[in-house]
Formats: sequence, C-alpha cells, structure tokens
Amino acid sequence: MTDDNFIVTPWAVIGDVNYDVLMERFGTQKINTPILDRVSKHTGELHFMLRRGIFYSHRDFDRILDAYEKKDEFVLYTGRGPSGNTHLGHLMPWIFTKYIQDKYNAKLLFQLTDDEKFLFNRNLTQNDTRKYAYENILDIIAVGFDPKKTEIFLDTDYIKTLYDIALDVSKRITLSTAKAVFGFNNSTNIGRIFFTSIQSVPAFLESKRQRKPIPCLIPCAIDQDPHFRVTRDVASALNYPKPALIHCKFFPSLTGSDKMSASKSNTSIFTTDSPKIAEKKIMNAITGGRKTVKKQRKNGGNPSECSIYQYYYYLFEDKDEKVIMLSDDCKEGKIICGECKQILAEKVKHFLVKHQEKREEAKDVVDQFMCKD
Amino acid sequence: MTDDNFIVTPWAVIGDVNYDVLMERFGTQKINTPILDRVSKHTGELHFMLRRGIFYSHRDFDRILDAYEKKDEFVLYTGRGPSGNTHLGHLMPWIFTKYIQDKYNAKLLFQLTDDEKFLFNRNLTQNDTRKYAYENILDIIAVGFDPKKTEIFLDTDYIKTLYDIALDVSKRITLSTAKAVFGFNNSTNIGRIFFTSIQSVPAFLESKRQRKPIPCLIPCAIDQDPHFRVTRDVASALNYPKPALIHCKFFPSLTGSDKMSASKSNTSIFTTDSPKIAEKKIMNAITGGRKTVKKQRKNGGNPSECSIYQYYYYLFEDKDEKVIMLSDDCKEGKIICGECKQILAEKVKHFLVKHQEKREEAKDVVDQFMCKD
Repeated sequence: MTDDNFIVTPWAVIGDVNYDVLMERFGTQKINTPILDRVSKHTGELHFMLRRGIFYSHRDFDRILDAYEKKDEFVLYTGRGPSGNTHLGHLMPWIFTKYIQDKYNAKLLFQLTDDEKFLFNRNLTQNDTRKYAYENILDIIAVGFDPKKTEIFLDTDYIKTLYDIALDVSKRITLSTAKAVFGFNNSTNIGRIFFTSIQSVPAFLESKRQRKPIPCLIPCAIDQDPHFRVTRDVASALNYPKPALIHCKFFPSLTGSDKMSASKSNTSIFTTDSPKIAEKKIMNAITGGRKTVKKQRKNGGNPSECSIYQYYYYLFEDKDEKVIMLSDDCKEGKIICGECKQILAEKVKHFLVKHQEKREEAKDVVDQFMCKD
Repeated sequence: MTDDNFIVTPWAVIGDVNYDVLMERFGTQKINTPILDRVSKHTGELHFMLRRGIFYSHRDFDRILDAYEKKDEFVLYTGRGPSGNTHLGHLMPWIFTKYIQDKYNAKLLFQLTDDEKFLFNRNLTQNDTRKYAYENILDIIAVGFDPKKTEIFLDTDYIKTLYDIALDVSKRITLSTAKAVFGFNNSTNIGRIFFTSIQSVPAFLESKRQRKPIPCLIPCAIDQDPHFRVTRDVASALNYPKPALIHCKFFPSLTGSDKMSASKSNTSIFTTDSPKIAEKKIMNAITGGRKTVKKQRKNGGNPSECSIYQYYYYLFEDKDEKVIMLSDDCKEGKIICGECKQILAEKVKHFLVKHQEKREEAKDVVDQFMCKD
C-alpha cells in the first residue's frame, strides 16, 4: 500500500491515512509557526494538541485570529454524530474546543446529527440515535463547556430553526456536487443526499440570528472537511461569511492503527466503561514492544507503532518533556510494555472516575445547555 | 403531435394531455360505474365532477369505500404549492374535497408546500412562498371546510412534526428511484431530490398520531401522482397503509388549451381579481366560435375547443342538462360567443363577490385551522 492508498469520507476511513497527503487532497493549509505564534500570544499557552500537530490543518483560521485581534466576535461550531456511546477519541476535539472557548471567550454551537446517523446506518432507528444523542450530551457537558456560552441541540429537536437555512443551502447544491464530494451513487438514499444541507446550518446560524456577519470557526476531525467545503462554497451566495476550520487527526484505536471506532467496542474505551474494564482493555492493547522482556530491554520498542504511546501523546500526557522521555525510554528499552500500560491505566482510570462524576452532575444541568424549537 | 406526445410531471405539463394515455402511463384505474354507484349510494348525490369525469382516475379508491362501509375512519389529504395567488383552477379540487369531507365526515389534512415552491422556483424566496401560502390559506378556508375537521399547515411551520416521518421515507427511497420517477439529473439541486419525502408525510401522519392504520385518501390533480407512487411504495415497509388517490384533470386556461397557470395572469382568473377585471379576462378569452356572428349563426361553434364552455363544464354550471343545452345551442348557432361570455361573466362575478366576502371572514378564523409546531 502506497502513502496515497487510503480513503477518508465523513462516514468511512479506509487504509492508513497519510495526513500530509490528505491535506493536499482536500486542499487545506498546514497550521504553521506564524499561526501558532499568534495563538500563543492570544492564549498565553499553546494547547498540546497544537504543539504536537494533532490539530494540524486549517482553512482560514488566520482570518478568525484577525477578527479576534480586531476584537470582533466569532462563534465556534462543532458536532457529534450520535451512532453510539462516547469513547475517548470523541472527547479529544471537544477538549480542544473547550480550550478555544475558554481562551477566546467564544460562544459554541454543538450539533448532534441524529438524523444523519439514522440515514447512514441501516440498523439504527430514530429512537436509537436520539437515545445515543442524549447519552453523548452528558459527555459533552462533562467536558466543561460554559453553560452561558454553549448551545447544544439535536437536529430532530431543532429542525424548525434549522430548516430554512438548510433549504437555502440545498437550493445551491447540485446533485453533481454532492456525488463528487461524497461519492454518492444511484443506490444512495435521498435523505443522505440532502443531509449535508443540515450540517451546514450551524455555520450560518449566528449570522442569521444577529443579522450581521459573525465569523464561524469549526474545530473537527479532518474527515468532516468535505461537508464544510460545500458549506464554504455556498456561503457567499447566501451572504454569510465562509466558515473557517481547524482540523485534527483521528484518535487511534487500541490496535494502534485505525481511528478509534465505537463499533469496535474492545478496542475503544468508552466514557461509561468501568475503571476495571478500561484497565483490562489497556492491558490487552497492541503495543510497539518486543515479544519478550529480554528483547525489549536489549533492542527497545517502537513508540510510533504503539497504541499505548499514542494514548499518552493524544490525550493523557500534556507535558511534552514527559512524552519525549517516554518515547526515549521505550526506544532504549528502559521501560517495558507492562509498566507503560499500567501507568496509562492508572491515568485513564483516574480520568474516567472524574469524568463519570461530572457526567452524573451533567444530568441536572442538561436543560441549561439544550436548544429546542 | 401524436396523442402520446406530452409530458406531465408534478412541476410541468407540456403538450396536449391525453388523459386516458396518461392513466395508462401512470398505471392508475378509471373511476368506473360500480365505484360511482357506491359513491351515489353513500352521498345521495354524485358530485358533477364525478359525473363528468373531471375526477376520473384513482388508486385504491374502492378500498376507501370499503373502509367507509365498514364504518372505519379515513383521513383526507390534499395540498397546494404556494407559488402564487390562487386562481379558479386551484379551487376545483378543493371544492371537490369539501364535498368528500362533508359527505363522508372525514378529517382533512391540507399541506402547503412552501419549501417545495422555494426549491423549484429560481426566482422565489422563502418569504415569497410563505406570503403566498398565507394568501392561499384564505382561499382554502373560504371554500368552506369544517374548522373542526380540517388542519392546514405550511411545511416550514410544521417541519418538526413532519421531519421524523420524512426521514423514515427518505431512508427508503434511492436516488435511482427519484431520478426515474421525477426525471432529476445531475444539475438538480439536492433540496428538490429530498422534497418528495416531505410530500409523503401527511399520508402517514394520522396513522402515526393514532398509532393504528388510518386509511388516507388523496384528492389531487393527476400531475401529483408520481409523488404518491413513491409514497405508496414505501408505505408497507414503514407499516402504514398505502394512501389511496382520486385524480382530476387540469382546469383549462382562458386560451382553451393548457392547464390554467398562475404564471400567465391574463389567461387565469384569480380569486382576488375584481369582478371588473374578471369580466374583462372572460370577454377577451379564446372561444370555439366562428369569426363572425353570421358564420356562428350559420355553422355553429365548437364547444370542445372553447375555454368559455370549459369554464361552465368544470366549475360554473353544476346542472348537466344546462351544460348539454349550452353545447347544443352553440353547435347549432343558437348562441353567439358574446352572449355566452356575458352569462359566464355574471356567474364568475357573482362567485367572486361571494368568495371574496368569505375570504375576508377567513382572516378572523385562520388560527382555528392552522397547525404549527
């Protein structure tokens, strides 16, 4: 398989993703040093997901920074497709989005596309996707978004507000464009074909409400970019600003390779897993280590192919020097997989206990966050 | 042009329609004598639109009559695409629908597809289609539907109620089907492709509300049949009864040929036209008469090609013997076009004055009819 031999759509990731190739394919920009310097200056501290290139690509993020420097308001928009319970991979961009919200004092619109997940999953009913959505919302709230500056909604609860902009968008998108961007064919159902119109709406909603252009920044995994290419294409015809994007890589699964997926429950850690279950999943994870302790001590392991190392890197170790030390220790055989897993397991267990407390507390404040028609 | 050389879609009628050929093309059934006899028995009087074959075709109308005979409830559903003001042609199926409502004591759902008209008309804004919808509603109410048994709604006002069934429907319709049924192509916008899902909803809504199968009868012009073929195809998979249909021919324009269209204002009489304007339009109409009074007296006219005669036949003379007499008198040269027009003009003016009074009164009771989320 060559570096170019992978597919990324909003609904499937196939093959080993080369993120630089993907950026080129999608036509996005690298988050470069001048941008990072500006964010450093604004925030006082660069989030480790920016320092490490986890959020690595963008469209017009510099224009959002321009707006901020001119003291103009901007709005954040991100989303979740509620096809299952929340796993740690889902939290990653949400944690980052909270950082942006906190540092830039920005309002956030959080869309749960329960309609999408119903349309794109043969086996899910609308009851299923609504049920998952309400479970997911507890996790979203548990991340710590500001209730005064955060609006969460399900598409099916909020469709009356969303529908008129969705119609505006859909009138501007030809079938030809939808087929080219999303790979639809004659067997695709017509709900799927329309759906991208709904995902466009929150990018324009605040401008519509305030009757003036409010720039929008969308932090999301890069697989969602195709939707927003379409959104950006129709924006000016509808007299809205093009939304800016900041894209992250995919959180790895415990097999160390593909994107963590809720459909593979043994290789994903869910926010509702008991600490014991989480520990077990971690202890069973595939690492970049050698087959025996002796070989590991002698030859060292390979962190770049290790799911445990990725967990530290993407989410559970925010100090760069510690990540580097871990990598070096692994390569030099100073640490063996069992130890490394055990340390991670303790961190994850600690995280889960705290998250689950906040998740329980979230049940009492859901109404403060929710928008319904 | 052969008898077969015409096109009928929900959005365009091109060529001279042969209604028998169309029935065959769509695969619908003729409303035959046994059916008419049953309706006579139920209603005491057969509506002239049934006697004259204006409502001439159906799908499963006999099953609705079966249900009625078993004292089962059924629901009526019809609609209007609010792309302009109401003209007399629009009233024709509504008047018939009121007859069915009255005689069968049936609840009616009346859908205004403002979303459709926005998506299918380049020049209409959502404000335009909403504005037309509210104008049209006054005419609908003026027809005399029972406020206790009639629910009127705009799609954009009622989308939260409609959306979940629309999603169910859209998940079952492939792009391939939509292309085949409606003739969509790569330049069609994706809103149009999805729209038929919305038009399906009222056929199922009462069954969903009551959580039991409620048969639905849709009186409509035959150009709407393609939508409901799709609706019928998905019904059983969604555990709803297939809606039945009863189809009418198109109300003629004042040119005597094509369907009366709101986009040709001089050849259509609007419900809001002043009696004077209406009279003028009628006096200028194209008839089946001879070029001179002398020739008319000698050779007689041709009612089958006369727009004035069609007006009597379709809407303004419910006594069959009078229609026959008019036709005979015309053919025999006993009546000349000027007289014939003047008599119709008086009838239309009288109708308009009364309708416009009821239309004014309707403004006070709109809320009794409207459903909003």
